[in-house]
Amino acid sequence: MPDGVPNPTSPPASRVLRRGEEGWNGLAPLAYRRGDAAPGSGQPRDVQRWLLAGGPASGCAYELRYFELAPGATTAHERHRHEHAVVVLRGNGEVLLDGVVHALAPGDLVRVAADGAHQFRNRGAEPFGFLCVVDSERDRPRPVDPGDDAPSCDLPG
Amino acid sequence: MPDGVPNPTSPPASRVLRRGEEGWNGLAPLAYRRGDAAPGSGQPRDVQRWLLAGGPASGCAYELRYFELAPGATTAHERHRHEHAVVVLRGNGEVLLDGVVHALAPGDLVRVAADGAHQFRNRGAEPFGFLCVVDSERDRPRPVDPGDDAPSCDLPG
Repeated sequence: MPDGVPNPTSPPASRVLRRGEEGWNGLAPLAYRRGDAAPGSGQPRDVQRWLLAGGPASGCAYELRYFELAPGATTAHERHRHEHAVVVLRGNGEVLLDGVVHALAPGDLVRVAADGAHQFRNRGAEPFGFLCVVDSERDRPRPVDPGDDAPSCDLPG
Repeated sequence: MPDGVPNPTSPPASRVLRRGEEGWNGLAPLAYRRGDAAPGSGQPRDVQRWLLAGGPASGCAYELRYFELAPGATTAHERHRHEHAVVVLRGNGEVLLDGVVHALAPGDLVRVAADGAHQFRNRGAEPFGFLCVVDSERDRPRPVDPGDDAPSCDLPG
């Protein structure tokens, strides 16, 4: 095999991936959901998503994801059977959790229980970013509000 | 059932746990490993551990843990079959990863592959804290160096 071509049968190696302003070095976002510009802001309300570790291509039963919401962006208001664990890494936002709004700051932990209705929102002027851990095998989210066409963060595109 | 006594058969509720200087409100550390004082520092080299989400008592296949190392503290130098995913939350430290030392700062991601030898170390003056995600069902760590009696962070006490 020529130099520089990774052996696809070799096991994954240990790695350190450094955090920068645009994510982690060498790690592309999984999907980018474009939103309309927030009124008066000129900024699109986008949601970016990274798979940091785990998932079907690994030997793990979990996925560790990172979501970053532009100012004004929200995730879909949804529920599912699988549990979420969220830890805020940057910015200030809020979660609508079973009908109650909680402000969130870096380090805060959110446990979303099975079938808990939840929506994450960036109400600040800076990006709002959080880690989210789920099982690799999980059910698909269901929208809470009939007619809500906001795409789920668990689906590509 | 009297007021104030939770129903043990009710499903776990969704929760927000706020991060403070001493951990998360309402969440006790799992285990506390006392270390000797670092020479000249007067500070014990302790390792604290929290289970933030998941684990056998949940419906999840993962555990989300948080480790905090006092200045001078290290975790055991060890390896295991299961994969680690680590994200630094506070402080500055380093990881010895398959024989190579990498400096770590908040936001950095470490993927420890199956059987990768690893040790986390706080070389700074502030606490060094990181999240760590693992499968709930996993093998026990094995020390890398014969005669190393540093207790593993995966065992209580």
